[in-house]
Amino acid sequence: MTAPAALSPAALRAAIRSGGWTGPTAGAAPGYLQCNLAILPAGRAEGFRAWCRANPRVSPLVAAGEPGDPRLPALGADIDLRTDLPGYTVHRNGEPAGHAESIGDLWRDDLVAFAFGCSFSFEDVLLREGVDLRYLARGEREAIYRSTLESEAAGGFGGPLIVSMRPLRPADAIRAIEATARYPLAHGAPVHIGKPAAIGVDLDRPLETLGRTGVPDDELPLFWACGVTVELAIRQAAPDLCITHRSAHMLVTDIPMPALRDRMPEEGLP
Amino acid sequence: MTAPAALSPAALRAAIRSGGWTGPTAGAAPGYLQCNLAILPAGRAEGFRAWCRANPRVSPLVAAGEPGDPRLPALGADIDLRTDLPGYTVHRNGEPAGHAESIGDLWRDDLVAFAFGCSFSFEDVLLREGVDLRYLARGEREAIYRSTLESEAAGGFGGPLIVSMRPLRPADAIRAIEATARYPLAHGAPVHIGKPAAIGVDLDRPLETLGRTGVPDDELPLFWACGVTVELAIRQAAPDLCITHRSAHMLVTDIPMPALRDRMPEEGLP
Repeated sequence: MTAPAALSPAALRAAIRSGGWTGPTAGAAPGYLQCNLAILPAGRAEGFRAWCRANPRVSPLVAAGEPGDPRLPALGADIDLRTDLPGYTVHRNGEPAGHAESIGDLWRDDLVAFAFGCSFSFEDVLLREGVDLRYLARGEREAIYRSTLESEAAGGFGGPLIVSMRPLRPADAIRAIEATARYPLAHGAPVHIGKPAAIGVDLDRPLETLGRTGVPDDELPLFWACGVTVELAIRQAAPDLCITHRSAHMLVTDIPMPALRDRMPEEGLP
Repeated sequence: MTAPAALSPAALRAAIRSGGWTGPTAGAAPGYLQCNLAILPAGRAEGFRAWCRANPRVSPLVAAGEPGDPRLPALGADIDLRTDLPGYTVHRNGEPAGHAESIGDLWRDDLVAFAFGCSFSFEDVLLREGVDLRYLARGEREAIYRSTLESEAAGGFGGPLIVSMRPLRPADAIRAIEATARYPLAHGAPVHIGKPAAIGVDLDRPLETLGRTGVPDDELPLFWACGVTVELAIRQAAPDLCITHRSAHMLVTDIPMPALRDRMPEEGLP
């Protein structure tokens, strides 16, 4: 079951807030930025911010809250981060400690929220720029791999770089690089192309996949930095509490994707 | 022997005009746009312009003259196209008919000049954007191939697409695509990456090379549209007279490369 595409971002958030939608947000409110979320205690927040800044392709910061404030008005006037995502993952001392559909009971005066771009709107961008996404036509999706690349350590956070792979024909690969380079807030350009073994990836052994993804002989695998990298950074840094979006259950914002073109992390939104 | 790098574009043109420099312009006036040149009779000029517009990666138009006017003030106040290139190739009925160091005796009232971007300043752009050009460090240069891709036929002009190949490591390939996409006037982004056979290229059989160029196992070949494509289009269209720059003997302009960033063909220059 997929989220109702016809709802506006605000209407979808209202439905989520009331408990009317608890599923993934893939396909919901197409054309609007969806964000990954990470909420940490103030004592670890500046370290996490430093790591995000050092790794803009992993976690391009779109907005951050004040300590204790669950709102992010830059992304939607009504947003309440305690209720407006359809699913959350709670991490204690770096380890996943269960899911929740709201986090009002976990909220604290010292929690700081960070929203960063994800690749959920990626295919939108690629299609708009004329990239032929043959893997979608084949009924396939991107695959996620753990690479031997490392994120840049900063502020007590670090760890291996997780990458998402999409296969494209060469001319489409070039168009995809051009297109995604224009969207630094959606992970930007790929980090690798064409030589999986060079970054420690065995294409047959994905970390997770949303469906089988093969690379035909006439296509090249492209690898983008993936937000799942954040989970491993949290595991390594082990803050006493961290709340993230549940996988595929994103914060749906009021920001139309075209407004993000050429905008840099933390540049401020229109 | 290489052209004197220390001269300004205007001083270099003055040296060329006086006969003091008749060699290639590679390395001359670094950081300034060098242009390919094609001069055709007015009767074929609009057809050629249409073909350039249909193939902006092959022949991105930077400036065009009025019929009979050998000046291009947008590229340099003093430019006289009859004398300011160190070498010309004369084509009659599409066939090369010799070289010249000036073309005052060939000039006619109906000739129209077209200047378009070339890849001579390419390496400048790539180095400025942090691309590691290992082939230069190995003492190698780009290689030129005839591909099975075709330019888009228009105005009586057409023919096969000639491509220039540079090998880069994957992360540098991505950076190079991002960087060159920002310079549509210098051929823009590549037309192909990674699968030479898919565009009919045998890497061991270049059309021409400025030194041996290999592709190590950890690098990918990138292919950009090459201005040599114009020579084949002229051969096919066979105008009674066409004068081009002699290979590697370019029009050196007053336009600094950074001013070209994000500028489109015919957009007008600063």
